Amino acid sequence: MYTYDYLLSFTIQVFEKMGCPTRDAEAAAKVFLRAELRNLPSHGMLRMKDYFQLWEAGRINTKPEIRIIHESPSTAVVDGDMAIGMLAATRSMEIAIEKAKVSGTGWVATQNSNHFGIGSYYAMMALEHDMIGIAMTNANPLVAPTNSVSKLLGTNPIAFAVPSKNQPAFIADFSSTPIARGKLAVAARKGEKVAYGFVQDKEGNPSNDPDILKEGGTMLPLGGDLEHGSHKGYALGAIIDILTGVISGANFGPFIPPNLAFLPMPKVQVGKGMGHFFGAMRIDAFQTADVFKSRMDKWIDTFRNAKPIKGKQVLIPGDIEREAEERIGKEGIRILPSIVKELKEIADKLEVDFEEK
Amino acid sequence: MYTYDYLLSFTIQVFEKMGCPTRDAEAAAKVFLRAELRNLPSHGMLRMKDYFQLWEAGRINTKPEIRIIHESPSTAVVDGDMAIGMLAATRSMEIAIEKAKVSGTGWVATQNSNHFGIGSYYAMMALEHDMIGIAMTNANPLVAPTNSVSKLLGTNPIAFAVPSKNQPAFIADFSSTPIARGKLAVAARKGEKVAYGFVQDKEGNPSNDPDILKEGGTMLPLGGDLEHGSHKGYALGAIIDILTGVISGANFGPFIPPNLAFLPMPKVQVGKGMGHFFGAMRIDAFQTADVFKSRMDKWIDTFRNAKPIKGKQVLIPGDIEREAEERIGKEGIRILPSIVKELKEIADKLEVDFEEK
Repeated sequence: MYTYDYLLSFTIQVFEKMGCPTRDAEAAAKVFLRAELRNLPSHGMLRMKDYFQLWEAGRINTKPEIRIIHESPSTAVVDGDMAIGMLAATRSMEIAIEKAKVSGTGWVATQNSNHFGIGSYYAMMALEHDMIGIAMTNANPLVAPTNSVSKLLGTNPIAFAVPSKNQPAFIADFSSTPIARGKLAVAARKGEKVAYGFVQDKEGNPSNDPDILKEGGTMLPLGGDLEHGSHKGYALGAIIDILTGVISGANFGPFIPPNLAFLPMPKVQVGKGMGHFFGAMRIDAFQTADVFKSRMDKWIDTFRNAKPIKGKQVLIPGDIEREAEERIGKEGIRILPSIVKELKEIADKLEVDFEEK
Repeated sequence: MYTYDYLLSFTIQVFEKMGCPTRDAEAAAKVFLRAELRNLPSHGMLRMKDYFQLWEAGRINTKPEIRIIHESPSTAVVDGDMAIGMLAATRSMEIAIEKAKVSGTGWVATQNSNHFGIGSYYAMMALEHDMIGIAMTNANPLVAPTNSVSKLLGTNPIAFAVPSKNQPAFIADFSSTPIARGKLAVAARKGEKVAYGFVQDKEGNPSNDPDILKEGGTMLPLGGDLEHGSHKGYALGAIIDILTGVISGANFGPFIPPNLAFLPMPKVQVGKGMGHFFGAMRIDAFQTADVFKSRMDKWIDTFRNAKPIKGKQVLIPGDIEREAEERIGKEGIRILPSIVKELKEIADKLEVDFEEK
């Protein structure tokens, strides 16, 4: 078990040794650690090795000049300059918030970036400004459009944070697929089958094999099959790809470069790096923030008090992660032994102290 | 079979007789007819009776003063003044487009409205301005949040239109549920069962009975059950309810007034009427419109040429409706005999000519 402060300090040191200025190292490290606190370890320290290897391969830039390359009063396109995704994303969301202060809303499309961790981190940055925050990213292609067997879309997530008054904020963060890829990996490691509706084989037949992606299979969009509305999950994933990839000048669909250094860069590129999209909407550009936040409390209260199915609990998006954050903030962060080992190896290479525990 | 022009002229006359100025009658009628052309008859002439009865009951206003009650450079809140939903929505989208011309993007939340027909109509209004168009609405509560048996959300749809160059535009328009309510009604009339994953009974047990809503059952969010990601469909429906209902000052969740005159108004109201949300994003606020549209062609081309499952066809959102529009535009519009009868009754009451055919 590690304390938050210990892992934050360690992560900052790793990024500094990779060449990041302290301010940048801190910004990126905070996103990693927030994922651990919110019990989303698949987006936390587990990813450090990927970043380290991308850096070793010269595929991320730790001295980036992140800059606006096109703008209007309420919009900007940001060139992430191959920065660590967390850093490009944090800077982009800051710009969205600045735009919203002046114009009511701010919308930033980011090109030339890579994996940005948990989208909810950036969406939540809006809350303290009494704004609604939105964050999306495209991702490595694993998902087939409805009726297809081609890997064309990522699990393309969207995060959405809404301020409230006395209730905790509404924070949704979800992929446009029934499950995250990580769940397939876990089932495969345990030798278990998964439910139908998550993946299909290379010919498009339903499959319950979590390892089917290795045999040419694909993930399915939210909805699973056409009868259950997979064309809607496909449309949602497509919208996210268009906002993050097409309009930003990044790559999109099957052209997105892999976040893993051992996978070669695609031969064809249609833009720069991976793409994100951020939004900030100032509440008082629509109505008095205080009135809105009371209305939002009423919304949350109404849904929290919905009649549950016997033995179940009705949740507001963000409840599970917020409760995790309170618990893990007190108890400490547990890192899997295999990840501890990876972190120790990185620490040794970079000559940073890291205690295995 | 009717021609487009005949039904448009008839619908305009009906709205005029209800008291609409000609300009308003035309604006609303065009949305009805576009639904028929796009083969979405559940949102076309079939709805005329509902509007007529709401008007008879004094629940819609045919002399509305639709106006901006709050604004910023990129946002506005519009009071629909109980107008026909199609009219409030058209005017709101026009305002979003005007805002986008000046500020890069425009975002309009509309209160005090009612059923707006097909969202894609408003989203598509942005296309000729080289803008991305977005439209959403909340709707009468039929859907239970994950783990609940309470009807708290509508089928809350979102529409999204993206301009392209030589390819037809990308036009997605989908509810946040696996199926529209209309599909349940059709199955019930035929005495057929539906697939599992669309509805549950009043205790939250899976059901395949399309009539279960009459016995206290509820519709399920996109994803169907928790294992298949229904919490994501719930989150999507919730986000749409917050943008359309909470931030506009309209009603939200279970407080939304029914669109049917024979159903009483809810005792508790938390705002005014039903709510919508519109967005217009000027492409050249992000990148040169011409470059973007070529990139969008590449996106569409890539997805259209995805490898299909044997015997299936990979579609781009909007393909089916566009093909219907071409076909029905030539062949004419078929209206079900039961709807023809309703229209004739309305025509007789309002002393408008209507030929039954």
